[in-house]
Amino acid sequence: MKVVIVGGSDAGVSAALRIRELQPNFEVLIITKDSYPNFSVCGLPYLHSGEIGDFRSLFHRTPQDLEAIGIKLKLDTEVLAIDRTNKVLATSSAEHIPYDTLILGTGVLPRRLAVLDDLHSPSVFYLHSPGDGEALESFIRTKQPRSALVIGAGYIGVEMAEAFATRAIKTCLIEQNNQIFPSAEAEFATRIQDALTLKGVSIHTSCGVEKASQTVDNKVRVTLTNEESLEVDLVVIAIGVQPNSKLAKATGIELSAQGAIVVDSYMRTSDHSILAAGDAVHTFHRILERFTYLPLGSTAHKQGAIAGEVASLHLTHQFKGSLGTQVLKVFENVFATTGLKRGQSRQEGYDPLFIEIEADDHKAYYPGANKIYLSILGDKITGRLLGVQMYGKVATAVQKRIDVAAVALYSRMTVAEMVDLDLSYNPPLGSPWDPLQVAAAEWIRRSQVQRESSI
Amino acid sequence: MKVVIVGGSDAGVSAALRIRELQPNFEVLIITKDSYPNFSVCGLPYLHSGEIGDFRSLFHRTPQDLEAIGIKLKLDTEVLAIDRTNKVLATSSAEHIPYDTLILGTGVLPRRLAVLDDLHSPSVFYLHSPGDGEALESFIRTKQPRSALVIGAGYIGVEMAEAFATRAIKTCLIEQNNQIFPSAEAEFATRIQDALTLKGVSIHTSCGVEKASQTVDNKVRVTLTNEESLEVDLVVIAIGVQPNSKLAKATGIELSAQGAIVVDSYMRTSDHSILAAGDAVHTFHRILERFTYLPLGSTAHKQGAIAGEVASLHLTHQFKGSLGTQVLKVFENVFATTGLKRGQSRQEGYDPLFIEIEADDHKAYYPGANKIYLSILGDKITGRLLGVQMYGKVATAVQKRIDVAAVALYSRMTVAEMVDLDLSYNPPLGSPWDPLQVAAAEWIRRSQVQRESSI
Repeated sequence: MKVVIVGGSDAGVSAALRIRELQPNFEVLIITKDSYPNFSVCGLPYLHSGEIGDFRSLFHRTPQDLEAIGIKLKLDTEVLAIDRTNKVLATSSAEHIPYDTLILGTGVLPRRLAVLDDLHSPSVFYLHSPGDGEALESFIRTKQPRSALVIGAGYIGVEMAEAFATRAIKTCLIEQNNQIFPSAEAEFATRIQDALTLKGVSIHTSCGVEKASQTVDNKVRVTLTNEESLEVDLVVIAIGVQPNSKLAKATGIELSAQGAIVVDSYMRTSDHSILAAGDAVHTFHRILERFTYLPLGSTAHKQGAIAGEVASLHLTHQFKGSLGTQVLKVFENVFATTGLKRGQSRQEGYDPLFIEIEADDHKAYYPGANKIYLSILGDKITGRLLGVQMYGKVATAVQKRIDVAAVALYSRMTVAEMVDLDLSYNPPLGSPWDPLQVAAAEWIRRSQVQRESSI
Repeated sequence: MKVVIVGGSDAGVSAALRIRELQPNFEVLIITKDSYPNFSVCGLPYLHSGEIGDFRSLFHRTPQDLEAIGIKLKLDTEVLAIDRTNKVLATSSAEHIPYDTLILGTGVLPRRLAVLDDLHSPSVFYLHSPGDGEALESFIRTKQPRSALVIGAGYIGVEMAEAFATRAIKTCLIEQNNQIFPSAEAEFATRIQDALTLKGVSIHTSCGVEKASQTVDNKVRVTLTNEESLEVDLVVIAIGVQPNSKLAKATGIELSAQGAIVVDSYMRTSDHSILAAGDAVHTFHRILERFTYLPLGSTAHKQGAIAGEVASLHLTHQFKGSLGTQVLKVFENVFATTGLKRGQSRQEGYDPLFIEIEADDHKAYYPGANKIYLSILGDKITGRLLGVQMYGKVATAVQKRIDVAAVALYSRMTVAEMVDLDLSYNPPLGSPWDPLQVAAAEWIRRSQVQRESSI
């Protein structure tokens, strides 16, 4: 059996590793456009911040590591077409590569911004592939930029603004929406914004690029929609992504309304010889109980592993769904979220109650206590937990406290059940009622008050 | 309605607070032997370590705080007998106090060590009540002890050894069992022991006190069962606790085989006018699915709140059970556990597989990664998760990672389901496969290997 995998990032490599484990006799070939497979694109902001010195340390595994365990690689090669009838791929290297099972891990394409693309400027960057990161880092090291504009304040935009500020590059971050970081409820977006502002990042929301031009020395001049103008040494565009599904589309595989590849819980496309996983596919959302588009690295790993199992003829393990669990570091602070936001939950027909509390990460009498800001979103009708958001310093461990909520959500708990959980307590490390339980108790109290006053 | 609560610690005060909230017109009286109600006994080791400067900062709430919200207090008063027929308490203050509902939060008594009790030495301490802590702290401040013997290496023993070492008191810790900290699997007990030894604590396991005597200047001379002798300025005895249930027993309320007060899931004793909660009662164990004796502060808070609800005539909320979740700080390291240990699980009729892994707390390419040691115990027959233990530096957040496992255990997950959880990922804060998931995957791998080799 020959399994060919298109794409050498998280989903593709996870699939390949699983096949090597389960079917050591299967042939596994990864074809990727990039020069670098199994590269941590999520780690790029920390290369650009200067916290990681060497580009090569961002390899999860080197090409040699992968080949050593029997995974064949064809790098710098684009798959141009899939001939499903003959089960053959046409590639940019003019080779025709047969497959028994094909796995598509084609990932995303960055949304483009024409007003800046039109400049064809060497100072304008997207941050999508390992090569993009390599090019940006080389630019920073050789040109020593003093100022930057980051367009788009999602994951990459915020992390790049942090990176540039850490590297003492004067940074402006702009966002089309009326708040930064759309995964955060407004209260938490404000905290993230304050953390960035405190370190000198200048932020404009409800703001886009009106006009752009280039100076003779490759600086970029931008006029914003709020009529401000600025001239910067460097522009990063991070205005979102779209599934890279053109190969699937061209061969007639079913796509979702958002253009993502449609898969079942075994990651099988509409052609069962072709599996797909990661950022190119639509994702089952465990709370919405339907498919949505929610590309995340952690999900790509899981889906890739399942695709690898199915390609290994082990149909035992289905994808159980995403909760949209995410965590963002902003300097020494952390924002974390799992589940729905209130606006979204209302659209889904829930009757949401959103409450927010402040609590210490451990007993205040022990030195070094820090505040945690924590919100709970629940459905007033059924009492079901719908979402949790947190913000605090790295030392408060909100990056793992969110996982406690994620397991509760996975298990479809009510808010009330969270009060019953047997969580750990020790004065220097916690409280007898964990902040999640304090918030849950407050949610119950408020939902009862609301119920009584509405009778 | 008049609710009288015997005991002013976690369970009693939690009950009182809940009643004030639900039934503001009920009269609530707490009677306690201690001078200090609502005191954090769990915080005492950090007073004795010198990390907390003021004894009074260990009040969760002061007597004035409690009285301000309408909770009446009778301090320094012992309840001598319960007349259930007339619903009246006899007290050490010669008063007869009537009740409609009685809540017993009488806690524990420390196990005594006769060989040292017989000395009647001012240098020998138990660490049980706020007054014990006050006396020990006063002793340390006035006598400036240079050496200490801690007998018993459970929670209090280990924390006191840490406290004394932090205060530059040369400390010997001895333990009758063949490992310290009995809640830890042997592999983890070794790590805790190493952390203590590294800071100069000398430890003897399988070791007790053979003989003890007192010098003229109140030093204590001890001969250990391993034939070593030592002379110390201070002895702390922490060889375990037993439920303080004599009041309940004397009035004919049902006790368990271990002498704990028998309660149902509403914390009602065999006399439904009398509720009981906290360390004096037996506790429903959620995995064993039966009652056991497992006194813990976090449990006492939960049970107390439920007793308060039931006393407030709100029978809506039942105690859902303990998992034995515990966390221990040892200097800058943390041990955490939830669920069963392998020996215990075997006794319960499970076919346990115990595996242990080492993993980084976040992607190793980002600076500051630290190792986490993590074990998973599962049942080979059903695949059910039975227990998780972890060890790592405070910065690895194992103190909250354990709660992720605790929710999985609460929800009766299989080990395999843990791989499907949507946990947070960001390179500086985690990994795409969380260490818990890495361990779960390893458990599955090993259980399959074992299954195949046994066919």
